[in-house]
Amino acid sequence: MAAPRGDTRAVGERSIPGGVRMERSILDRVPSLLTDLYQFTMAYAYWRAGRHQDCAAFELFFRQNPFGGGFALFAGLSDCLNYIKTFHFTDEDVDFLRSVLPPATDAAFFQYLRGLDCSGVTLRAVPEGTVVFARVRGSGLWARGGLKGQNCVVCNVLQEPLMEVAGPLVVVQLLETSLLCLVNYASLVCSNAARFRLASGHKRKLLEMGLRRAQGPDGGLTASRYSYIGGFDMTSNVQAGLLFGVPVSGTMAHSYVTSFTSLEEALPKTLVAVNGNRDAVDLISLTKSWLGRVCKLLGADPEKIHDGELAAFLSYAIAYPKNFLPVIDSYSVTCGLLNFCAVALALCELGYRPLGVRLDSGDLCKQSLDVRSVLRLCSEHFSISAFDSLTIVGSNNISEQTMVELNTKENEIDVVGVGTHLVTCTKQPSLGCVYKLVEVQGKPRMKISEDPEKSTVPGRKAVYRLIDADGYPFLDLLCLALESPPEAGRPVSCHPLGTCDTPLTVTPAEVTCLRQEMFTKGQVTQPLSSAAQSKEQVQQSLQKLHPRHKRLQEPDSYTVALSEKLHMLARDLRRGITNKNNVVSPN
Amino acid sequence: MAAPRGDTRAVGERSIPGGVRMERSILDRVPSLLTDLYQFTMAYAYWRAGRHQDCAAFELFFRQNPFGGGFALFAGLSDCLNYIKTFHFTDEDVDFLRSVLPPATDAAFFQYLRGLDCSGVTLRAVPEGTVVFARVRGSGLWARGGLKGQNCVVCNVLQEPLMEVAGPLVVVQLLETSLLCLVNYASLVCSNAARFRLASGHKRKLLEMGLRRAQGPDGGLTASRYSYIGGFDMTSNVQAGLLFGVPVSGTMAHSYVTSFTSLEEALPKTLVAVNGNRDAVDLISLTKSWLGRVCKLLGADPEKIHDGELAAFLSYAIAYPKNFLPVIDSYSVTCGLLNFCAVALALCELGYRPLGVRLDSGDLCKQSLDVRSVLRLCSEHFSISAFDSLTIVGSNNISEQTMVELNTKENEIDVVGVGTHLVTCTKQPSLGCVYKLVEVQGKPRMKISEDPEKSTVPGRKAVYRLIDADGYPFLDLLCLALESPPEAGRPVSCHPLGTCDTPLTVTPAEVTCLRQEMFTKGQVTQPLSSAAQSKEQVQQSLQKLHPRHKRLQEPDSYTVALSEKLHMLARDLRRGITNKNNVVSPN
Repeated sequence: MAAPRGDTRAVGERSIPGGVRMERSILDRVPSLLTDLYQFTMAYAYWRAGRHQDCAAFELFFRQNPFGGGFALFAGLSDCLNYIKTFHFTDEDVDFLRSVLPPATDAAFFQYLRGLDCSGVTLRAVPEGTVVFARVRGSGLWARGGLKGQNCVVCNVLQEPLMEVAGPLVVVQLLETSLLCLVNYASLVCSNAARFRLASGHKRKLLEMGLRRAQGPDGGLTASRYSYIGGFDMTSNVQAGLLFGVPVSGTMAHSYVTSFTSLEEALPKTLVAVNGNRDAVDLISLTKSWLGRVCKLLGADPEKIHDGELAAFLSYAIAYPKNFLPVIDSYSVTCGLLNFCAVALALCELGYRPLGVRLDSGDLCKQSLDVRSVLRLCSEHFSISAFDSLTIVGSNNISEQTMVELNTKENEIDVVGVGTHLVTCTKQPSLGCVYKLVEVQGKPRMKISEDPEKSTVPGRKAVYRLIDADGYPFLDLLCLALESPPEAGRPVSCHPLGTCDTPLTVTPAEVTCLRQEMFTKGQVTQPLSSAAQSKEQVQQSLQKLHPRHKRLQEPDSYTVALSEKLHMLARDLRRGITNKNNVVSPN
Repeated sequence: MAAPRGDTRAVGERSIPGGVRMERSILDRVPSLLTDLYQFTMAYAYWRAGRHQDCAAFELFFRQNPFGGGFALFAGLSDCLNYIKTFHFTDEDVDFLRSVLPPATDAAFFQYLRGLDCSGVTLRAVPEGTVVFARVRGSGLWARGGLKGQNCVVCNVLQEPLMEVAGPLVVVQLLETSLLCLVNYASLVCSNAARFRLASGHKRKLLEMGLRRAQGPDGGLTASRYSYIGGFDMTSNVQAGLLFGVPVSGTMAHSYVTSFTSLEEALPKTLVAVNGNRDAVDLISLTKSWLGRVCKLLGADPEKIHDGELAAFLSYAIAYPKNFLPVIDSYSVTCGLLNFCAVALALCELGYRPLGVRLDSGDLCKQSLDVRSVLRLCSEHFSISAFDSLTIVGSNNISEQTMVELNTKENEIDVVGVGTHLVTCTKQPSLGCVYKLVEVQGKPRMKISEDPEKSTVPGRKAVYRLIDADGYPFLDLLCLALESPPEAGRPVSCHPLGTCDTPLTVTPAEVTCLRQEMFTKGQVTQPLSSAAQSKEQVQQSLQKLHPRHKRLQEPDSYTVALSEKLHMLARDLRRGITNKNNVVSPN
């Protein structure tokens, strides 16, 4: 609800005083039973086989960039860290498990579950808000170079591991579903928000207002948090403001307008001028006189004014004279705009500065032009400079496509409110993250499915981002964890998708290690980033990315490649399965 | 994990012992700040105008049946009742509001908020799990009769109010966003589940397994609860079992299979026969001998068997000999099926009854036929009758369309697991519920938008369902609350969509009142229905519905109509706005 500042036009925006506060979740703790039953049946079989303490590593990744785009944003990490930090089973949990697992289950297993925690787990991950990539899709660097080999089953399974979770086999298996649940939607909606931001450019303010269309209370909060991180400026969701420090915004709904029927309902009727030098003024009379002047200027019939709407605007203006921004299309934009101008001009006469108007139906672009021209006319005719910089807010089932059109069609919309299409991710409502076993007891594991898309890349890895001389990342390299890292200025040989037997040699100008240790020995080892910090990370990460990968439609694919050694391991494991029908461990 | 019973083949299904338990939510309480900021700015303006105690009524409804279907299911009511029962603002909430509302906000307003609750609110609603309808779309009773008048702006705004929330203007306004959030997704996913059930028929069991793809922890729980209510038999989500008593189910993932590499890892190696009459038997040797016999029968090469997979199956079978249902396509269905048969036949020799197999990739219909024919061959050749009734579970990105195909293409799938397409409602990820003002201080209110879809039906109403002589509901009639209700056997005149000046006369054989008082004076006045009770209500409600409205594609539209008096009120209010630019109250 702050007044507009300089050139960034705010609508009712309100930041948390005192900066970032301690963030909390809507849930004190993600319940440790919030997982699939088969995690427990497998856990029991492992436990019975004495394998529960085997050291295992899983990787979390997704297989396709969402929305047909060239990238995704990794998000949900801080929720994951909070989850594993508090992971344990209560007596009630264990009692419930006892009631649902087969009666023959050994009682000692439940005792074992009761004592489980994540003190033996190590989690390495890409920092929250980092640009990440999935399988390239044939339009990238190497496809453009005409390299062959798309049928290579080793390279076809390429995906970038975002998170590695290592520890006792049973524990890391039990974490699967919750980690997927926490990363999947967070990354999806964050990536969606980033696309809305890319479509919109940085000139406009973006308001998330999807709470009522999300998957319940927590879905709505997650949407608000990660839309902000992905590039939105503010939310309508007050609880998200309280919990995460996201700026909150909003003024009025149509129901407010339709609840008034006559000017008698506009109470109180008076307002004191901003400088307080005069007695309280009858704002209704003042507004009526302005209404006459505006109608005359625009050739409108004052009899056609909707009194209830005028009463609604007056009441709001008297309550919040410094924050006047009504929705003007409850009956018709023509009528609403006349009423707005009358009230806003009266406010101006008393020294207040109205904020603007909201349009919530119809052709927003055309209406915004009409509205702006009336506002300019008033500004000139009545010499009211405040009318030059009024904010026009648009909201009406805004999609990514609408947002793109706002950049191509002429319009005067300063702030866009987005709900359904943002929070439900209409274009693709799931990211499809998976969590796959890559190593047990030091031996690499690989799923080799008849469906090549469901195969995995084996072994524990390090992930490096290779930067070119212009400062743009151009290739992410997956290496075995124990390999020496690629070095700046030195050629490195690797295997991108589809270049099976023809390795590619690239020379990075700079190399960064993409993943960091985030949790070990029961402790979070990096400071949890606040929503504002993650938002900053998103902006930095996206700024570095070459525009060709950021195109919303048909982007150039970013290349993810395997190191020579990792490629050979995958090939050997696959040959092992092909020749001997067994997984060969090269160690 | 119960063994198959009679003709209903269960897969690892496990009901809560002792029947329905007290249900809880994942959230102790939906936070009262989980709403849009504009609810508070409006609340303040109402309060300043002295209108906060005005008696207002809002209606909650949706505008289109979801998924192109002929109906929706109303769900989320018990969550709404829990929410309004506990609605209040804490000191922390009020402090936060003080920090985000404009500094000029009167301090007494915050004091007022601190004391608010829902003791003055009355909520009337359709019972949870009832079939409901939105705007008819031109293919219904009257369109088929060739009646004209589609341009009638009064009739074009027809929607069925599911919930009426009446009470002090400020309070019922503040409830808007949370009520929408709680009804929207619950009703959507419940309706989606019902469509999956209709597509599947009642022969197959349906397992919801979408937790990892939902909008966070609470989205996942909501999905599990309302999928069950809508017609699914069980969930993979353990917490949903604990909280709502939904039967839980599951056995193993691919990672379990790929975590084993050799038969040495199959531990323990022995199993005691079910009757306990013999010493522990070396199950590995027994299985190997069965493997030889199966390979010989099927002409397969035992050398092509994947030892790791066999070890995984053996370990699981030894842990849960009465609950053996492995996923058999981690490497290839051919290999997995041989391993399954060998282990399952060994179990049968010891008197155990294996449950079945799960297929998780590829062409499920074709694979299920192949699998069934091998199982039958084994049954005949080895005279093992248990092999006749093994369960085949299919899961692999199942959509409503896949489910329809399962009824047209030959297959042997007994249980279907559905995740992403169910919980994210891919076909339409939002129901678009809205909450509109219909009355203030006894005067009807109507939003008359330039966009006819956004107009509303004014006034407080009663909703009656008219039943025909065959027992099928055929028309829902919206009347003014004070009108006398329609009576069985007596003609009633009404206005369905598009029959503006030509009322229709119908004679119901039976009439039921659709909505009941659910909450008043701070108390829930009907028993909250458990998930199982709501599920029963869904089944009853759907059973009564004529099949022509239940067709998944191009259903006949169900007719919703206005009573003569309500139609006249809407027409008069609209004429009022047209002629005098004011909302006329007829009272």
